[in-house]
Amino acid sequence: YDIQKAMVARRSHLPAQTRDGSRISVMGNIELPEEVVSVLDHGGDGIGLYRTEFQYLSRPDFPGEDMLFDNYKDVIDVMGTRPVTIRTLDINGDKAVNYIRDSHELNPALGLRAIRYCLQKPEIFKTQLRAILRAAAFGNVRILIPMISGIEEVDQTIRLLDEAARCLEQQGVAHKRDIPLGIMIEVPSAVVAADILAEKVDFFSIGTNDLIQYTLAIDRGNRHVAHLHQPLHPAILRMIKRTCDVAREKGIPTYMCGEMAAEPLYAPILLGLGVDELSMNPQAIPLVKDAIRSIDSKDIDDFMNAVMGMTTPDAVEALLAETYGAVVNKIEHLKQE
Amino acid sequence: YDIQKAMVARRSHLPAQTRDGSRISVMGNIELPEEVVSVLDHGGDGIGLYRTEFQYLSRPDFPGEDMLFDNYKDVIDVMGTRPVTIRTLDINGDKAVNYIRDSHELNPALGLRAIRYCLQKPEIFKTQLRAILRAAAFGNVRILIPMISGIEEVDQTIRLLDEAARCLEQQGVAHKRDIPLGIMIEVPSAVVAADILAEKVDFFSIGTNDLIQYTLAIDRGNRHVAHLHQPLHPAILRMIKRTCDVAREKGIPTYMCGEMAAEPLYAPILLGLGVDELSMNPQAIPLVKDAIRSIDSKDIDDFMNAVMGMTTPDAVEALLAETYGAVVNKIEHLKQE
Ligand SMILES: [Mg+2]
Ligand SMILES: [Mg+2]
Repeated sequence: YDIQKAMVARRSHLPAQTRDGSRISVMGNIELPEEVVSVLDHGGDGIGLYRTEFQYLSRPDFPGEDMLFDNYKDVIDVMGTRPVTIRTLDINGDKAVNYIRDSHELNPALGLRAIRYCLQKPEIFKTQLRAILRAAAFGNVRILIPMISGIEEVDQTIRLLDEAARCLEQQGVAHKRDIPLGIMIEVPSAVVAADILAEKVDFFSIGTNDLIQYTLAIDRGNRHVAHLHQPLHPAILRMIKRTCDVAREKGIPTYMCGEMAAEPLYAPILLGLGVDELSMNPQAIPLVKDAIRSIDSKDIDDFMNAVMGMTTPDAVEALLAETYGAVVNKIEHLKQE
Repeated sequence: YDIQKAMVARRSHLPAQTRDGSRISVMGNIELPEEVVSVLDHGGDGIGLYRTEFQYLSRPDFPGEDMLFDNYKDVIDVMGTRPVTIRTLDINGDKAVNYIRDSHELNPALGLRAIRYCLQKPEIFKTQLRAILRAAAFGNVRILIPMISGIEEVDQTIRLLDEAARCLEQQGVAHKRDIPLGIMIEVPSAVVAADILAEKVDFFSIGTNDLIQYTLAIDRGNRHVAHLHQPLHPAILRMIKRTCDVAREKGIPTYMCGEMAAEPLYAPILLGLGVDELSMNPQAIPLVKDAIRSIDSKDIDDFMNAVMGMTTPDAVEALLAETYGAVVNKIEHLKQE
């Protein structure tokens, strides 16, 4: 198996393309600037999700603009012209910042988190936005907003971005305002209202962990309901499809950065649903790239017609195993090594 | 105003029909058998939601079958031939039963509740199902299952109902198996997969409180995010519409029993979306009936086209006030008295 693994590692530095030659970007998720090396080592085409909570969690108070800027620039410098997708502060129940008071909530997953929190604390949010716009002058930066539930939150974010840019302009600080603005598709209403949201943003990024959690009303950390956490639930597949369909219609791409993207087994379905780019923990990149290479787009339409006709997660999983069983076995085997 | 109120009270005992004569059932929600009188006094056409948690909450251990049967029969006897919709046990975070251990959950709203709990405790569930089937022999009973997220839960429920009926049959106990089985539409996946679910059930009942909560990822009890709890959010209106459209296509009716149903102001929208029956706290019945009488179905199509074109809750609300302002003012006025 050493030879096989070495080949996977070598191939990880080639582009991920299906047998018939259509290319998909396979990106890395990171939390710390240091992890950027691992993304490159594993053949990542860029950073699909740079989580920015750590800089807020590791300190006794809110980080300053320069410190944030340095963190972002560290990542951008290493990535060169490759995309770096910086997600704005996504504090929530399980990542509570301990110097934020008043955070006792009965259902933190349904509480004041992410963009909701940022819009209630515009000064803290603007500090981060300024740092991002400044760092953007040095590379290929995208900005990604978590937990968007409706168009007002997008409008408010754009206003704050404009304000931050105007301020930097007046102060003569180097920055770049004209960067792609995207939103996480993870609150069910964002899927249902995707056509409205697409008018105002440059890309979607599906966050499957939260999307599954809210769509099925299942806390993914709760073992009592873990059996109901089903990525292949027909409702989840339909929501991903709707997001991709609407995005295509509106001329914007759909990315994915939840755990679902990291599962090689799901690659045929995700491509079939129309996802344009997958982002995952760096270690998962080589095997997902390999899974993509085993797919022929010609087969996908028939496969997806069958998948979308299934009424239970189990039926989808059985069909997946039947159709892509060889790939699955090979890849699962390598994962276990 | 006394005369006006007396007129509303008198009219509450007439059927609710629009100006052009289409009839809508306006039903009452109850928790205790005693409340059934209030439903009749306020002109309710039946019980749209009989919550059955109280019999579990008021005791040191699980209630027995006979006690449950007596409770259900008390309600049915008073209602005569009018429908009585019994919802099976919907225990959850904010209604925790204190003799149920192991219930510490970080996000109880996304945890082991309602049908999920019942399917993990089939003996407890079957006791309730037996009591319902026995009571059904005495009136016009519908059974309603909360928190359905997928078809497997419906299949399992039907199996348990069949088992309970078979057992009663063997024991020679009077009962009725052939009663309408409905599901709450309150988990987003149930809306998305409504066509699949409709194949197995006789009616839908939209629970707007939870549907809004999950669709917008907003805990309705959390004041920090209360401003985001928007019944007129375009995503919510679309989900209600989709539920009604699918149900009509499949030949089953759609009811509604959340707080949204109790707001006279929303009656034109709910009728326009295609809801077939509204259920609410008994006190709200007379004014909702009055609101329905002020509507002319001829105007509804144009109004709904405009509503469904709006992109924000505020825009929908403004249009509603503009179009049905007179009704709204009159009714709000009476409410404050
Ligand atoms: Mg998330
Ligand atoms: Mg509910």
